Amino acid sequence: MEKLLAAGLMSGTSLDGIDAALVEITPDLSCKFIGGVSLNYSEKMQQKLKSLFAPTISPKLLCEMNVLIGEYFAKAALLLEEKTGLKPDLIGSHGVTFYHNPTNEKFENLSLNSTFQIGEGAVIADRTGITTVCDFRPADMAAQGQGAPLVPFADKIFFYNKNIPRVILNLGGIANVTVLSDKCEVFAFDTGAANMLIDGAMRKLYNTTFDKDGEIARSGKVNESLLSKLMANPYLKKQPPKTTGRELFGETLLDEIINNTNDKPENIISTLTTYTVKSVKDAFDKFIYPATDIKELIIGGGGAYNKYMTELFRQEFEPKTQIKSHEDFGISNKYKEAIAFALLAYTSYYNIPNNIKTATGAVKDVVLGKIIRKG
Amino acid sequence: MEKLLAAGLMSGTSLDGIDAALVEITPDLSCKFIGGVSLNYSEKMQQKLKSLFAPTISPKLLCEMNVLIGEYFAKAALLLEEKTGLKPDLIGSHGVTFYHNPTNEKFENLSLNSTFQIGEGAVIADRTGITTVCDFRPADMAAQGQGAPLVPFADKIFFYNKNIPRVILNLGGIANVTVLSDKCEVFAFDTGAANMLIDGAMRKLYNTTFDKDGEIARSGKVNESLLSKLMANPYLKKQPPKTTGRELFGETLLDEIINNTNDKPENIISTLTTYTVKSVKDAFDKFIYPATDIKELIIGGGGAYNKYMTELFRQEFEPKTQIKSHEDFGISNKYKEAIAFALLAYTSYYNIPNNIKTATGAVKDVVLGKIIRKG
Repeated sequence: MEKLLAAGLMSGTSLDGIDAALVEITPDLSCKFIGGVSLNYSEKMQQKLKSLFAPTISPKLLCEMNVLIGEYFAKAALLLEEKTGLKPDLIGSHGVTFYHNPTNEKFENLSLNSTFQIGEGAVIADRTGITTVCDFRPADMAAQGQGAPLVPFADKIFFYNKNIPRVILNLGGIANVTVLSDKCEVFAFDTGAANMLIDGAMRKLYNTTFDKDGEIARSGKVNESLLSKLMANPYLKKQPPKTTGRELFGETLLDEIINNTNDKPENIISTLTTYTVKSVKDAFDKFIYPATDIKELIIGGGGAYNKYMTELFRQEFEPKTQIKSHEDFGISNKYKEAIAFALLAYTSYYNIPNNIKTATGAVKDVVLGKIIRKG
Repeated sequence: MEKLLAAGLMSGTSLDGIDAALVEITPDLSCKFIGGVSLNYSEKMQQKLKSLFAPTISPKLLCEMNVLIGEYFAKAALLLEEKTGLKPDLIGSHGVTFYHNPTNEKFENLSLNSTFQIGEGAVIADRTGITTVCDFRPADMAAQGQGAPLVPFADKIFFYNKNIPRVILNLGGIANVTVLSDKCEVFAFDTGAANMLIDGAMRKLYNTTFDKDGEIARSGKVNESLLSKLMANPYLKKQPPKTTGRELFGETLLDEIINNTNDKPENIISTLTTYTVKSVKDAFDKFIYPATDIKELIIGGGGAYNKYMTELFRQEFEPKTQIKSHEDFGISNKYKEAIAFALLAYTSYYNIPNNIKTATGAVKDVVLGKIIRKG
């Protein structure tokens, strides 16, 4: 094993573009973030990409998008090289999730659990001339895992400290936590809704995409009756490991909230913001604090930029559990997932198992990913 | 580099099942065929698989078939291990071609050339516990090649002899040749129709799948007017490299032949059998003999079992060019393609470029495939 410069490439569910991060990784797996860059898809490309998420598609469109997304990922890697002035030794590319279904259906007694990330790694390796690791999720799923989440492996390396039990909270559309403590195995689960409900309500009530700094939430008051109803969601009581998404916290719930709540818009936003915080706290009380004391709660994801929400987290958790940011540990919040895939690529390349069984539910340790020699 | 036992797994366009071959490969790339086994898909599985080849499909079906085909490939590998009593060190899996389009279309000035083989390698690696190389075609296509043919790499290693210029002829649905001579670069191309027309006519005229040993062809007489029309097909004049398929030599041409030829069925079969031989000879006269003398023509593929056709090849080519079989060189004709993917896996694993640019049209040497660590 050698010290390598690894680039991580990530494109999330928002389908707007690619984050690329350059990381120096040493054999003890310590990571130094060197720089990051984001590349947006062209508008035509975004439209073409969105047309893939339909009940039926043409094989031609799928296969074309696989190579086109590969071309864009390669561009992002080349842009990163240009910006940092450093050529990576290795690329780890997550790709774009086209399909993900860990629902345990069977055919002829064989598991149909499957996942598919597009963004052809062979195109990335060819255009960059850099060995590329891609397609990280199928190996965990083949080992009976959910194929997700994969970031806890990086969380463990970045944040584990045997003297300071920590939780890493990612506030994306959904909120998820990774628990790092010497008192228990690493475990991770989705606590419930985060920006999915708040951003959705901002779109419907304010015709804008998000509540900048949480200012609208700050100006409103919590509707206690709505909050109680939301806190009664049975998902919150479900035992981890558990994952959730649009099925439970998407448009259907949002429409129900908006149509059945006779209150000012800012009060609805305020309630949904408080709900995010209270449902995380509820998960701590039910599932985390009983397993281990937690000294620090490290907030990341888009919600980390919501200043009002961060204040609510402080009110709710401090002084028992201190609220921290990714930047407090030298990890860029914006590029966190891209950084994680650089580290996953490094470990895959050197044949080090890199799924976290207690997070994915896999029955064994596996080396994730597929390695493509440089083009 | 070490001596390894490599298993090659192949599933062809007929979609009936999987061929698996075990090969001992040494660092000088010499191959010793140890044994082979075939596994047929269940009838339900075949139906499900065939439903994939439609103008539009559901992402769910595609992703499920990807893992199911992976399960079947894994079963074939395990069956091979059981039959030979030897555990492979490495698996090379071609998968099932779901889509292949090298037609040079563009989007935003980016190539849309793409290819997709299904049969999840991560499932194969997990179920067998063996490091698996899969997905061989995309890297050649990323390097501007057609992603096919890949078998000439193996042909070169099996059959190249600087003193004996040879052609390897594969008689599948389509006939293709690989030219191995010290007088020119290795080159390969499709000469035109082979079993695609003969088997199609047997189905329509005799309601059976093929002409066993060529007995029906032997009992008939060539219809010279039909033969002349077929020999006038412009594809035969086209300069190599060239590939063809069902578009030119499929149902449309077959219906035209059968509807417009007022002759006995056995005469039609006889004519199509002779056409296969004459169109190969025509390719020799136009493109191969002008480049190099050829001492031996090595026949393989399903057509090698057609005794009458082999006799016609002898009449047409000997004594100038001797007709040989794969078995004359210790290579199993039945398992030839599976053997080729074992060798491709070995070379990919050891980082040896393994596309043949003059066969695929790629602009550079690449290491094909994606390497998945054993599960």
